[in-house]
Amino acid sequence: MSPRKGNLMGVREDVKILDATIRDGGLCNNFEFTDEFVTELYKANVKAGIDYMEFGYKSSTAMFDESKFGKWKFCKEEDIRKIVGDNPSDMKISVMADVGRCDYKTDFLKKSESVIDMVRVACYIHQIPAAAEMVEHFHDLGYETACNIMAVSQANSDTLMQALDMLAHTNVDVIYLVDSYGSLYPENASDLAQKYIAAVEGTGKSIGFHAHNNQNLAFANTIETMSYGVSYLDATVQGMGRGAGNCSTELLLGFLKNPKYNLYHILKFIEKHVQALKAEGVVWGYDLQYMLTGQLNRHPREAIDYTNDGRADISEFYKTLLDNH
Amino acid sequence: MSPRKGNLMGVREDVKILDATIRDGGLCNNFEFTDEFVTELYKANVKAGIDYMEFGYKSSTAMFDESKFGKWKFCKEEDIRKIVGDNPSDMKISVMADVGRCDYKTDFLKKSESVIDMVRVACYIHQIPAAAEMVEHFHDLGYETACNIMAVSQANSDTLMQALDMLAHTNVDVIYLVDSYGSLYPENASDLAQKYIAAVEGTGKSIGFHAHNNQNLAFANTIETMSYGVSYLDATVQGMGRGAGNCSTELLLGFLKNPKYNLYHILKFIEKHVQALKAEGVVWGYDLQYMLTGQLNRHPREAIDYTNDGRADISEFYKTLLDNH
Repeated sequence: MSPRKGNLMGVREDVKILDATIRDGGLCNNFEFTDEFVTELYKANVKAGIDYMEFGYKSSTAMFDESKFGKWKFCKEEDIRKIVGDNPSDMKISVMADVGRCDYKTDFLKKSESVIDMVRVACYIHQIPAAAEMVEHFHDLGYETACNIMAVSQANSDTLMQALDMLAHTNVDVIYLVDSYGSLYPENASDLAQKYIAAVEGTGKSIGFHAHNNQNLAFANTIETMSYGVSYLDATVQGMGRGAGNCSTELLLGFLKNPKYNLYHILKFIEKHVQALKAEGVVWGYDLQYMLTGQLNRHPREAIDYTNDGRADISEFYKTLLDNH
Repeated sequence: MSPRKGNLMGVREDVKILDATIRDGGLCNNFEFTDEFVTELYKANVKAGIDYMEFGYKSSTAMFDESKFGKWKFCKEEDIRKIVGDNPSDMKISVMADVGRCDYKTDFLKKSESVIDMVRVACYIHQIPAAAEMVEHFHDLGYETACNIMAVSQANSDTLMQALDMLAHTNVDVIYLVDSYGSLYPENASDLAQKYIAAVEGTGKSIGFHAHNNQNLAFANTIETMSYGVSYLDATVQGMGRGAGNCSTELLLGFLKNPKYNLYHILKFIEKHVQALKAEGVVWGYDLQYMLTGQLNRHPREAIDYTNDGRADISEFYKTLLDNH
């Protein structure tokens, strides 16, 4: 087993926090954030020392009707620039591109013409060849690139090793371990993280972790994988994200010892803007229905339906999940 | 570093779950549970395979006015028997006795005359000699005994080692690592757990863990310490407990692979009884104010006041905590 990297008192200069609030949180409110919310989050993130802020998806306007979603499902250059100008801060800007749902050949400027710094390609494991092609395209345009392999808790170990080997031979900068179903325990997550780290050894690539909070383990798994050498950590304010949500920025900032991070500005943002969003009825976070889909290692869609239907018969829901297992 | 004990698929026969809902949860509602609630929890715990159920504190009636608290602050023999009769189940019954707040020489029957199986002595580290005296008294009466050393995250390491050595020479059956302030990270918790385990090696004694959820780590720390050999695990339904609450029984039952455990009955109980308690306004669970006292390794009293005062100015609260640090 690899030794842990660093200790609880030290600073790991390689660690980067990526704020995914607008992107993953957008799945809770159809990406309909006000410009004020996004602008204030941008300012708070800069003051808090956050390393990357993800603005949303670059989705195909041919596949998705723009009138039916907020603009952060499309992340047009002019919309991002309306918030950040030329982004005079040290914080980098990322967007996500889903394999099969993005017109990547036409919708991205050259990096030299764009305020975007990093493109993260999200894929399922059978889409790795398509993801690799997109990664090379974005790399050639001049962007930093990441590849987020989703739903690996259901992937065969051999297949996963092949996928990691393929990606290790691309120009991708960061490969993300993604706990899509919130089903990983810290021991699973750290075992997998060590496999990812071993797969890119000597390539100069980094490993990231994206958690889901189904079993209240998003933060625990994030710091556990980090302790074994994962360095790109996804977080969102108050854990905002689909279903049970993600690792909370405020928990992570309280843990990390790098003096460049400052929790106060995130608390101030939560107080003024996130609480208002919750008061408007936007719902996310740990709850029993998400715990159950996490425990059973399955997609949260049934738990999301349970939530949307306002159900409270959790024992019946559990029986149904067991029937459909 | 000690190896982990067992693996994620196996059954650890030494593991015992202790339901502390009435005892730690009683701190949220002044111990004013209805008999129906306690009876139904007892039945649910028996069906779910829970190993111990703690009914509350054995507090001194000379020090505390019985008219001002629910009966589970006192745990009289007749009150427990009203719920469990002679307890014909396999589940054992425990009560907690606080050093300095319990008339232990007069208020306990011999075990042969009592339905109580285990007495857990709770103390701060400077009270270890008093705790040891109580442990021996309860042992002589015929009870299983435990000693819960609270607030160890603020204790000096050498003092803690001396305390563990003293307890290792008593007749205590279980020594509990207690994360009173919810300030431990999994790496801290597992390091401490390994020290506790080493201190009792060869004595036949067991180590337990009692978590608090200030940093959303109650469940993570519980299973992490367990993986290194901790075997007595405290849990409460929906994490009910003072402030940020405890490790949730339902999360733990989803994790443990022993077929004797059955999650369904706990979900049914939550659905019928715990949700009603929440609807009545009893409040507990992870929230920003508890996160902050956990991050700063201090008693949650200021966070409890913040909650009771209905405050929402979390950034001001944070500044005040830093001022008083």
